[in-house]
Amino acid sequence: MNKQALLHKSDSLYSFAAGEDCAELRLRAARGELTSVYLVYGTKHRFCVERKSIPMALVATDELFDYFAVRLTLADKRLAYVFYLTDADGKHYYYSEDGATEEYDFSLAFYNFFQLAYVNPNDVMPKVDWLSDAVVYQIFVDRFNRAEPNGGASSKPAVGSGCINMKWGEKPTPKSFAGGNLDGITQKLDYLRDLGVNTLYLTPIFTSVSNHKYDISDYYNVDPHFGGNEAFRRLSDGCRARGMRIILDAVFNHCSENIAQFRDVCKSGKKSKYHDWFVIRGDKPTKRPLNYDVFAECSYMPKWNTANPEVIEYLCGIGEYWIKEYGIDGWRLDVSDEVSHEFWRAFRKRIKAFGADKVLIGENWHDSRSYLMGDQFDSIMNYAFTKAELDFFVYGKLDAKGLCERLNGLLMRNITQANYMMLNLIDCHDTHRFFTLCGKNEEKLLSALAVNMFMPGATMVYYGTEIPLEGGYDPDSRRCFIWGDHPFTDRVRELLRYKKLEALCAGDVRFDSEDDVFIVERKADGQTATLYVNNTDKEKTLFGMTIGAYGHKIIVEK
Amino acid sequence: MNKQALLHKSDSLYSFAAGEDCAELRLRAARGELTSVYLVYGTKHRFCVERKSIPMALVATDELFDYFAVRLTLADKRLAYVFYLTDADGKHYYYSEDGATEEYDFSLAFYNFFQLAYVNPNDVMPKVDWLSDAVVYQIFVDRFNRAEPNGGASSKPAVGSGCINMKWGEKPTPKSFAGGNLDGITQKLDYLRDLGVNTLYLTPIFTSVSNHKYDISDYYNVDPHFGGNEAFRRLSDGCRARGMRIILDAVFNHCSENIAQFRDVCKSGKKSKYHDWFVIRGDKPTKRPLNYDVFAECSYMPKWNTANPEVIEYLCGIGEYWIKEYGIDGWRLDVSDEVSHEFWRAFRKRIKAFGADKVLIGENWHDSRSYLMGDQFDSIMNYAFTKAELDFFVYGKLDAKGLCERLNGLLMRNITQANYMMLNLIDCHDTHRFFTLCGKNEEKLLSALAVNMFMPGATMVYYGTEIPLEGGYDPDSRRCFIWGDHPFTDRVRELLRYKKLEALCAGDVRFDSEDDVFIVERKADGQTATLYVNNTDKEKTLFGMTIGAYGHKIIVEK
Repeated sequence: MNKQALLHKSDSLYSFAAGEDCAELRLRAARGELTSVYLVYGTKHRFCVERKSIPMALVATDELFDYFAVRLTLADKRLAYVFYLTDADGKHYYYSEDGATEEYDFSLAFYNFFQLAYVNPNDVMPKVDWLSDAVVYQIFVDRFNRAEPNGGASSKPAVGSGCINMKWGEKPTPKSFAGGNLDGITQKLDYLRDLGVNTLYLTPIFTSVSNHKYDISDYYNVDPHFGGNEAFRRLSDGCRARGMRIILDAVFNHCSENIAQFRDVCKSGKKSKYHDWFVIRGDKPTKRPLNYDVFAECSYMPKWNTANPEVIEYLCGIGEYWIKEYGIDGWRLDVSDEVSHEFWRAFRKRIKAFGADKVLIGENWHDSRSYLMGDQFDSIMNYAFTKAELDFFVYGKLDAKGLCERLNGLLMRNITQANYMMLNLIDCHDTHRFFTLCGKNEEKLLSALAVNMFMPGATMVYYGTEIPLEGGYDPDSRRCFIWGDHPFTDRVRELLRYKKLEALCAGDVRFDSEDDVFIVERKADGQTATLYVNNTDKEKTLFGMTIGAYGHKIIVEK
Repeated sequence: MNKQALLHKSDSLYSFAAGEDCAELRLRAARGELTSVYLVYGTKHRFCVERKSIPMALVATDELFDYFAVRLTLADKRLAYVFYLTDADGKHYYYSEDGATEEYDFSLAFYNFFQLAYVNPNDVMPKVDWLSDAVVYQIFVDRFNRAEPNGGASSKPAVGSGCINMKWGEKPTPKSFAGGNLDGITQKLDYLRDLGVNTLYLTPIFTSVSNHKYDISDYYNVDPHFGGNEAFRRLSDGCRARGMRIILDAVFNHCSENIAQFRDVCKSGKKSKYHDWFVIRGDKPTKRPLNYDVFAECSYMPKWNTANPEVIEYLCGIGEYWIKEYGIDGWRLDVSDEVSHEFWRAFRKRIKAFGADKVLIGENWHDSRSYLMGDQFDSIMNYAFTKAELDFFVYGKLDAKGLCERLNGLLMRNITQANYMMLNLIDCHDTHRFFTLCGKNEEKLLSALAVNMFMPGATMVYYGTEIPLEGGYDPDSRRCFIWGDHPFTDRVRELLRYKKLEALCAGDVRFDSEDDVFIVERKADGQTATLYVNNTDKEKTLFGMTIGAYGHKIIVEK
């Protein structure tokens, strides 16, 4: 047995409460090596003398590992356990905190059993159910739709009015303003609802001199070019009237150099009461040499010092304001992995006080277990999933079996509740458009969207995917939406309709592959929805079913 | 290469800030397999285009794995990296979030590099330096020493006075009261200081009907039989006058059924405002069937509901009170792993407000990474170390090489700061006495203590070890201290003196073995202290040095 492949840790993503009286245990082992895994368990204080055992199921396999799992309903919330393993040679091992051993002394088990010491309800990561059901439409506001400032119905761009400096539909530059605004979105709510969207996620809308508005100078006012707070009132009311949710972009890692606090520091240096709101090495901020922390290398975006309690209070207040006053449903958290855990713990408490269903979704591109333990975020933008889709559909690095393994591996990065809240995406304003990357192949785009929709969690659709919009890297990925009839839209609408199935929301997931066809099966309450994806240039026949080149099939059984 | 053995995770015990501008990275690989490991790193936002590399050193080897590590001083606090591995066959691999691959596309690295996204100062686990230097003497108060209530100097027991029901030195039963008290400890402070002790840790002292006082009915008053609050004032003043620290036992998992809040619930059931302070299934608490959560199976110890904000406030207030009023140096946290993380996060904030040097030490018997990330405890009682010592000195499960491997494995369970704050122990009131387990072999006991003292972190000495006291499991491990002359005490005193060496406090640690002699080397500022332990029944000669059976040698070079 490859002992080095074994992995389990107490109180970790391998050992967690899936509910207040439910434990989920996972064990990782080398792929194909164990023929059976039993959990030997008991109440913590009686484990040395009284135990039960239960088989664990093989729930996922990735390139290197098999993952076994079991769920236990706990009568006593103090769980002690070890594993009993059998390998292909019929050899048996106990696996405890002291590793895999052929014998195990239960009388000394209190030193080295694994445990879920006690399931405290306030440590259980809750699942926000609506995220599992969500079709989230991401809008880059300046480029989606423009309503005339009088609130009229026209979506024609008015070049030259306000700060508009490009014609609607022209190729954008980093400094382009196309004039899209919030009333423009409000006008399209029925369109979006009919498309299958139930949640909007807007890139930043607060006062800022840029088109992307990630450099905010006033967090309490919607940018006048987007229509100001009144336009946001109309939009949020419009969403509510249609049963749609709305998420805003919380840019709390940094702000604009134009914000009052930073300007005060520029004027007064260490005498400013805001000096410690930023991370400045010296008296006044200077750009050459850059003596303060910023976002990326952008000196116009000074980083907030989220170790400062005053900053924590200030930003939490903003987070609360837009929920309290406008009833938004949560925040997408920009550059969230560069903001302190301490900050997010405080922020979570303040936001969740308005309801457990107010969500926090981090912009974390990397393994984010440390943010998804229940004390910080509900969810992250699932860029690791994006990469898997690209490696399969675009870069040719994964075949169907490889995608299956990769996605299994991703599921095993986080606890189950977190998996069912992931914001799954194939592209966004910070990447190339998937459609462009996949060679403008509509079949591939649809198939990739279908895989997205079959992943547990929320399905994100970047605005324009449905027409389908092209675009390279920023700023090209932020082109104007071209309104009109697009036959492709009907196909996207038809696809998104499946997200109403219970199987695609709460359902269990199983990835598989057969003859280089990638298969996802989702099951809930006796309903089974299965997706078959043929990412080859030839039609395939599988199980008597024909799937076109790059095409997919969805079969629902109830 | 055994790819399954590789382990690294962003923002984990493999990737952490060791200071505000210092990152420590670790990589785990199969033992003996990699000939070199390089860290390929850069500033996060420039990693795709600009990188450096630095070799990582093999810092530890356990039974299965080699651990490589490197420390980086960060000019920019945003670190991205992958690893570059070479195996014995000369094959090269990149290791990223997508695993070990022969090629790696740096242009897409933003999807799968590892990262320490930004070192936020409030996320860095601080090291409390005095814990690294501490010799902590644990006292089971009822059994250490009795001063007559008039504050007189007599340490003779007065059978029949107060609740005393045993003669000093008799074998204790679970219900024995020997009459030890706080003034008795105060009388012995000079003795303890001379022994080499600089910190006291007392089992609970608050009002309780038991001899152990883990069932507390009044957290604001020292038990009258221990001398009340005034006696504690004398003791804490006495410690302060001698530059000694004092830690109390925080029993916040549960209390006594006699506490006012629980009595109120017994009387009024759900009408009591304290009903939700406990975990009760039903109206009033009943013992048969037991309808409320308790410690272990003890119905007289109802568990606090630490998910209730009122309980959090109440217990935090107690934690603060004894620091504010008596200046204690921290808390040992009883049954800490059954109390919620959420509670400990709140508790830490409240306690650390009195100073970063106020310590929190959990009674966690198992892998406790989830408590030692900087947001909860500073330290735990290192029972995994206890088990390693037992497996070596008592159970014969480990030879010198095995102990070396086991201890290396333990160091790799936690981040470096946590390792240097561990409370290392060989026994306590909850175990058999080590002296009894090792067959009353004074050489073994001394050698085990020496190993303890050479572990990074605090050295704990259970009262009576120095005379040396015998004792099986509770209540036998809680015998009365027998005052008088014990030649063994001089040997313990002589040993503990080494803890004053800088090398044994801040020094780096390296475990080794040679000819079944266990070796620990500690190094700081050019000073090297080396411990050699011969746990065999024959005298050994190593490097020209003779070490007696079960004996040890300490060599200091400067």
